Amino acid sequence: MLSVKRLDQQDCKVLIEGARTKAVEIGVPMCIAITDESGNLLAFERMDGGKVTSITIAQDKSYTASAAKKATHDYNAVNVPGNLAFGIHTEVGGRISSVGGGLPVIVGDDVVGGIGLSSGTPAQDMECAQAGIDHFMKHFT
Amino acid sequence: MLSVKRLDQQDCKVLIEGARTKAVEIGVPMCIAITDESGNLLAFERMDGGKVTSITIAQDKSYTASAAKKATHDYNAVNVPGNLAFGIHTEVGGRISSVGGGLPVIVGDDVVGGIGLSSGTPAQDMECAQAGIDHFMKHFT
Amino acid sequence: MLSVKRLDQQDCKVLIEGARTKAVEIGVPMCIAITDESGNLLAFERMDGGKVTSITIAQDKSYTASAAKKATHDYNAVNVPGNLAFGIHTEVGGRISSVGGGLPVIVGDDVVGGIGLSSGTPAQDMECAQAGIDHFMKHFT
Amino acid sequence: MLSVKRLDQQDCKVLIEGARTKAVEIGVPMCIAITDESGNLLAFERMDGGKVTSITIAQDKSYTASAAKKATHDYNAVNVPGNLAFGIHTEVGGRISSVGGGLPVIVGDDVVGGIGLSSGTPAQDMECAQAGIDHFMKHFT
Repeated sequence: MLSVKRLDQQDCKVLIEGARTKAVEIGVPMCIAITDESGNLLAFERMDGGKVTSITIAQDKSYTASAAKKATHDYNAVNVPGNLAFGIHTEVGGRISSVGGGLPVIVGDDVVGGIGLSSGTPAQDMECAQAGIDHFMKHFT
Repeated sequence: MLSVKRLDQQDCKVLIEGARTKAVEIGVPMCIAITDESGNLLAFERMDGGKVTSITIAQDKSYTASAAKKATHDYNAVNVPGNLAFGIHTEVGGRISSVGGGLPVIVGDDVVGGIGLSSGTPAQDMECAQAGIDHFMKHFT
Repeated sequence: MLSVKRLDQQDCKVLIEGARTKAVEIGVPMCIAITDESGNLLAFERMDGGKVTSITIAQDKSYTASAAKKATHDYNAVNVPGNLAFGIHTEVGGRISSVGGGLPVIVGDDVVGGIGLSSGTPAQDMECAQAGIDHFMKHFT
Repeated sequence: MLSVKRLDQQDCKVLIEGARTKAVEIGVPMCIAITDESGNLLAFERMDGGKVTSITIAQDKSYTASAAKKATHDYNAVNVPGNLAFGIHTEVGGRISSVGGGLPVIVGDDVVGGIGLSSGTPAQDMECAQAGIDHFMKHFT
């Protein structure tokens, strides 16, 4: 039997709070998704003005980051023609995201969940996702 | 030009708070989804222990209630063989739900969103969805 | 942070062994799927002669049993016109199964995974799934 | 009437054993999928720690290798803009994989199945898939 660590709802609130605060600061209403270590949705918030397409994109970014244990921008770096990983973004019904903005949430040696942001540029999405992680780490430790 | 009334994030928090409080009271961890008047997700919370299958089911109930402007248990009542509405639950890729637990959020004459609950029995899901609406109405007025 | 119990590969082997032994005994080659507590596939075996359609059906039964924490035959009992749960089988893209043959694997108070069988009659599928559970419980305790 | 050669469960065990042994050796827990000559799943193992996204990716690599009778890295080589095969990876609902790690299992002149690995880098996935084939060939002859 395995024993697995997973974000709880209190953790989700802290992650979303950190991401939302940064989104307000840069003036871009975001969709914010938090998934568990298996990629399943734990919490979601579409800030007033967040994009409808981003409802799914934020979730898929978080799914990818948590279930594949890899930042979506790391997939982006290898998802180029000629690289052996090219085409990875159409896998799992297209849910694997290689667009920046999804980060795994790592505690110790374990991926315990993921966070995915969408509605801004990939750079803005990445900045807000990172702000969520930073805020969480400050609370966690 | 139309002017459309839609739940904002503050409204979502109140709706979820009302549903969560009832879920805690009856001892069933729930998935709680809030959608806007177009059926698109605004907010989601999987309480610690909520079911993975209910992540989608709660969203589909809320989608149905808001976008079809009808409680899912009202679809249930007509979704019986021989009734002209029979089979409605497989429409829209199966997203139309005829399982109790999805309610439209109505303000004045307008459906402004929906709430969907899943993880308990349909009766429990309906009770918690209604508690969300009741809590919202109390705050709203 | 939550701590979650999950089947490991050794557990999967025992569950499959129990189900396979019963399938051989009744002379029906089966598809056997084991999922984790979140419904994600851990192990799968299509016995020589198992049905192609059952590849998906066995997985969906196991997914349902583990992720919804309920035997698929329990969903079958309430999935009748007029019941408030009617239509549940088309949810999650039709992955929710109300066909007998999916059982949650329960250790103490926790659903730690699921087992799904398909290729025989529902009664045969249920018998083999239960044989898998029985064999596992004997080893586990 | 055609007579078709197809892997049986004993063959699957040998293929998985070879791949798993290499995965343990390089320290990367893998998802390992074996499909028949028609691309349908025969056996699957998610080693403890294998990635959730790789459940589907390993199966799709094996599906592609067996049903298209071509290694996924051979598709990778031609899946570049300007090549007439470009875009092949979105076919069949995105199940055609051009990511390295899927190999056909060939006996004599016949493709009798496929093996797909996922969770490492494409190079690691390819190495473990080849180890499965090598182990099988040693047993087979």
